Amino acid sequence: MEIPKSHPRYKSLMKRERVVKGVENGMVVLEGLIAHGRGEAFDYLIGEKTTKHALIAEKTAVAHIITAKNPVLSINGNTAVLAGKHIVEFAKITGAKIEVNLFYRTEARVKKLCEFIRSLGAERVLGEVGNAHIPGLEHPRGICSMEGIYRADVVLLALEDGDRTEALKKMGKTVIAIDLNPLSRTARTADVTIVDDVERAYMNMCALAMKMKVYGTKHLEEIKESFDNENNLREILRQICKRFE
Amino acid sequence: MEIPKSHPRYKSLMKRERVVKGVENGMVVLEGLIAHGRGEAFDYLIGEKTTKHALIAEKTAVAHIITAKNPVLSINGNTAVLAGKHIVEFAKITGAKIEVNLFYRTEARVKKLCEFIRSLGAERVLGEVGNAHIPGLEHPRGICSMEGIYRADVVLLALEDGDRTEALKKMGKTVIAIDLNPLSRTARTADVTIVDDVERAYMNMCALAMKMKVYGTKHLEEIKESFDNENNLREILRQICKRFE
Repeated sequence: MEIPKSHPRYKSLMKRERVVKGVENGMVVLEGLIAHGRGEAFDYLIGEKTTKHALIAEKTAVAHIITAKNPVLSINGNTAVLAGKHIVEFAKITGAKIEVNLFYRTEARVKKLCEFIRSLGAERVLGEVGNAHIPGLEHPRGICSMEGIYRADVVLLALEDGDRTEALKKMGKTVIAIDLNPLSRTARTADVTIVDDVERAYMNMCALAMKMKVYGTKHLEEIKESFDNENNLREILRQICKRFE
Repeated sequence: MEIPKSHPRYKSLMKRERVVKGVENGMVVLEGLIAHGRGEAFDYLIGEKTTKHALIAEKTAVAHIITAKNPVLSINGNTAVLAGKHIVEFAKITGAKIEVNLFYRTEARVKKLCEFIRSLGAERVLGEVGNAHIPGLEHPRGICSMEGIYRADVVLLALEDGDRTEALKKMGKTVIAIDLNPLSRTARTADVTIVDDVERAYMNMCALAMKMKVYGTKHLEEIKESFDNENNLREILRQICKRFE
């Protein structure tokens, strides 16, 4: 069934179709569609564009990733379908590793997603070999790669479950989360919360990383230290309320 | 894959599974899952319970339906799966007709949903015979029942598209909408907007209708007249912002 172009929400409905296609290809689970809907709602509230405070968080995130020893970008089905191309680019710019890591893990889906990310130009994608376990998470939700998430000092999660975010924090990692819901457990648990659409966030971070790669260590440390996640989230809620009026 | 009971969002995840099952049964389209996700997000913002202002709208809606000549409850896939039982009960209490009316209409899905609603105890469900068309909507989105929505004076929509809500308003109908997004076009177009979960809304309206059936016409007219939809929506947004703090 075609959506008529005359429909005022045509653009948003078309974007939605990408996630629906992901289900048909076996890359996104049905629950991923519901998660996308939640994201749509919150994106609507922030105005469907990168806000000033999201950009501050994105800059801070890039500073963390550039200065990390073993930064890992965690990818799930929705993230892959919505921002795969830009994640591959970001990994190339920063040298971060990519790991496919799923809440609803099946070996078939991990394999399919790894192949998809490789088809977008990534040389190496972790996740197929699940040889480590995140403490405190039940099997198979806790499976991860020893070389990737398990040993990472900085992990960038997108559209992630609160339980898993907390478990990674308990391991002592610096957690960066892309999450459109500023009130979610993930948003409140992460060290740096990017309240932005995952595609916009990665596109912005690519541009920022290109610039910031030449920054000195001192400058990057200052960016990291001057960021206050709680304050930033509070400002985002304030902006949403302003929009209500 | 089982969701562990230890997961803090177990209840919400289980509810979600009902809509996922609806997809597997062919009653809900994939886009319906995304719509459910949007609903989840807004329900979260209002506190996942019926607010004072939702209850006022529900009472007003019942007054409209009781005093209508030809009230029709419009049902789509999500509504059927989430609140079918209570819709059938509400129709029995008030004498309103039930019509299955779909944004993504296929004859097979209409038939399946009509059968499902009948299996819940409804004697008669309109919608299978699409012998009228809502002016201004492209085919097949505008198909409806002559005896049902086309000739209705009051239509209760749930989780409905903004285009269709506007088209029904243009036909001169009184439109009641259940919509968790207080900012949506449907919410702003309807005469009475119920910002509540569809299951909670219908459960409340069943209880209200039982009580209000014995009210005199004057009392019911007063309830209808004292309601201001714009004000009510504004109050709901105000409450959401209060919760942010």
